Amino acid sequence: MSDRTYYSREIHGPYELFELGNFDLESGYRLRGAKLAYRTIGTLSPGKDNAILFPTWYSGTSGIIEQAYVGSGRALDPEKYFIIIANQLGNGLSTSPSNSAPPAGGAGFPIVTIADDVVAQHKLITEKFGLSKLALVLGGSMGAQQTYEWAVRYPDVVKRAAPIAGTAKVTSHNSLLVQTFIDAICSDPNWDEGWYTRSGALHRGLRRHARVFAASGFTPQLFSTEGWWDIGFASPDDFVMNFVEAHFAPQDANNLLLMLHKWQNGDVSRHTNGCLKSALSRIAAKVCIIAITEDVFFPIADLQAEQSMIANSELKRISSPWGHLALFGTDPNYNAAIDTCLRDLLAA
Amino acid sequence: MSDRTYYSREIHGPYELFELGNFDLESGYRLRGAKLAYRTIGTLSPGKDNAILFPTWYSGTSGIIEQAYVGSGRALDPEKYFIIIANQLGNGLSTSPSNSAPPAGGAGFPIVTIADDVVAQHKLITEKFGLSKLALVLGGSMGAQQTYEWAVRYPDVVKRAAPIAGTAKVTSHNSLLVQTFIDAICSDPNWDEGWYTRSGALHRGLRRHARVFAASGFTPQLFSTEGWWDIGFASPDDFVMNFVEAHFAPQDANNLLLMLHKWQNGDVSRHTNGCLKSALSRIAAKVCIIAITEDVFFPIADLQAEQSMIANSELKRISSPWGHLALFGTDPNYNAAIDTCLRDLLAA
Repeated sequence: MSDRTYYSREIHGPYELFELGNFDLESGYRLRGAKLAYRTIGTLSPGKDNAILFPTWYSGTSGIIEQAYVGSGRALDPEKYFIIIANQLGNGLSTSPSNSAPPAGGAGFPIVTIADDVVAQHKLITEKFGLSKLALVLGGSMGAQQTYEWAVRYPDVVKRAAPIAGTAKVTSHNSLLVQTFIDAICSDPNWDEGWYTRSGALHRGLRRHARVFAASGFTPQLFSTEGWWDIGFASPDDFVMNFVEAHFAPQDANNLLLMLHKWQNGDVSRHTNGCLKSALSRIAAKVCIIAITEDVFFPIADLQAEQSMIANSELKRISSPWGHLALFGTDPNYNAAIDTCLRDLLAA
Repeated sequence: MSDRTYYSREIHGPYELFELGNFDLESGYRLRGAKLAYRTIGTLSPGKDNAILFPTWYSGTSGIIEQAYVGSGRALDPEKYFIIIANQLGNGLSTSPSNSAPPAGGAGFPIVTIADDVVAQHKLITEKFGLSKLALVLGGSMGAQQTYEWAVRYPDVVKRAAPIAGTAKVTSHNSLLVQTFIDAICSDPNWDEGWYTRSGALHRGLRRHARVFAASGFTPQLFSTEGWWDIGFASPDDFVMNFVEAHFAPQDANNLLLMLHKWQNGDVSRHTNGCLKSALSRIAAKVCIIAITEDVFFPIADLQAEQSMIANSELKRISSPWGHLALFGTDPNYNAAIDTCLRDLLAA
């Protein structure tokens, strides 16, 4: 598969493009002709009160989110809700290093923040759909970072929020972990500070990155119980290569690095001069924080510390041998548990 | 500091060299003029019944082991015991890539196994000290791998064994983690398949390796509570750079890779055609397995699975925010707890 064909509807399913036009980033840089890729499922109610927003996680697109979380009979049921899955900037479907022309393309692409994503998504829901309320904003990992940014930045819009396996403010440990992902990609001999000619030539760095990601993203228990057997893998090496390396190999390195930089700097306390408590006190939504008990990327203690600072909130725990990467929807027990959490929240 | 001066008594304290002579490795290769570096503290009793053997962990030497575990009033009290700290092959003090002449030097150094270390140590204790029994063999991490090899290979010699934060057979998850360490070092642009001219030139790879090691080696809790403050560091970056990167930067890359390869292949079931239960049933020693509750390198469930296969054994748990790297002796609570475990075992 070539790099170019990976970011396509053939691979990621249907999506639409919203014209952001001249879009000013937090950094001061102006993206010109910027586009936000989104996918909607279901029908907006006449009262416009059934919209749910689900931003993507690191390296994911609307396709995997729909597949893992949306469906008839699921909590996110398109027969009841109008579900908008927003592709984060830099994920290859929305405006990204890989699909931008010089001078903003590739390594020339400016720094983007979680806040930029949320401002872009706000333009989408207000200008395209005329929404003033969202019944629910939810997301996993970097999607949780965006969910927190939504609830803090637009408290009047967000009625309910479900940040899953993610934090409002990146911790120093999480930042170190993300640095190891960045290190792995940039270690590639063809990296050339991002001015590589073809991302596929960075297969060494992308494979190293995949292994670091897999080593912490899954749990030792998944390996000791050979839990990957159920989804069609034959050995630990087969699983790591054909699930994780295969996921990252066709992706563009600058896209991944842009997202990693956003992740490493996700912090709602930028609104309040660094005071996290003060930022979280702005939240008006009913918040259900969902932790994966075995998660090494976002340990439960860090989620708990933030939950204690949010007025109308609760913390729910889901256990999975898939660890952080249970987000992908590979564990039926996780899927059932997350639906229960989301149904309860939506009923509240 | 130059690469050469790092592996010295000035840095690692006093040690002796035992001439292994022509030493045949498990791989079939013969090391010529091989040397085992060891440090003894205390006095061998007339009945030769007070000897304790403590092999080193990954990237460590006898110096840090003595500093962290041995002392008057500690469980390993030199007034009572004759303590032998054996430097593993490849650690820079014993025969290693960094101190061997061509063709065996550097990248030409042959593959070494945990079993080779144990056979070399057996020569030391029998030929140099005339010992037929060891009151205790213990070690952390790769030291635990050597401890298990001792107990399985020489059941008549080992009276007590204390494998700390390590396993008898490497798990597939642990092997993946070790692969990320190997990947990081070999990612250096000056690596040249191990034929670099000066290990210091590999500072990029060694620093990446240090960060991957630190991200899993310590716990998120250590970072959120700023636990490194107590030992003199000022920030997360200061801690990672001046504790972890500083530890690895002066070390030789081929030495580290040799040790990582041993770690990745540590497996006592090689004695029994791959049957771990059968290998562990050979153990005659009283075994106290010590797990660090928060350890991500060697999770407690993996240690527990092995313990259930060892007849005369128990599993003890020590909790520490330092995670796997509590082994270094930076946490006074860990140090006190480990002494209690070892005192109980030695009294049995």
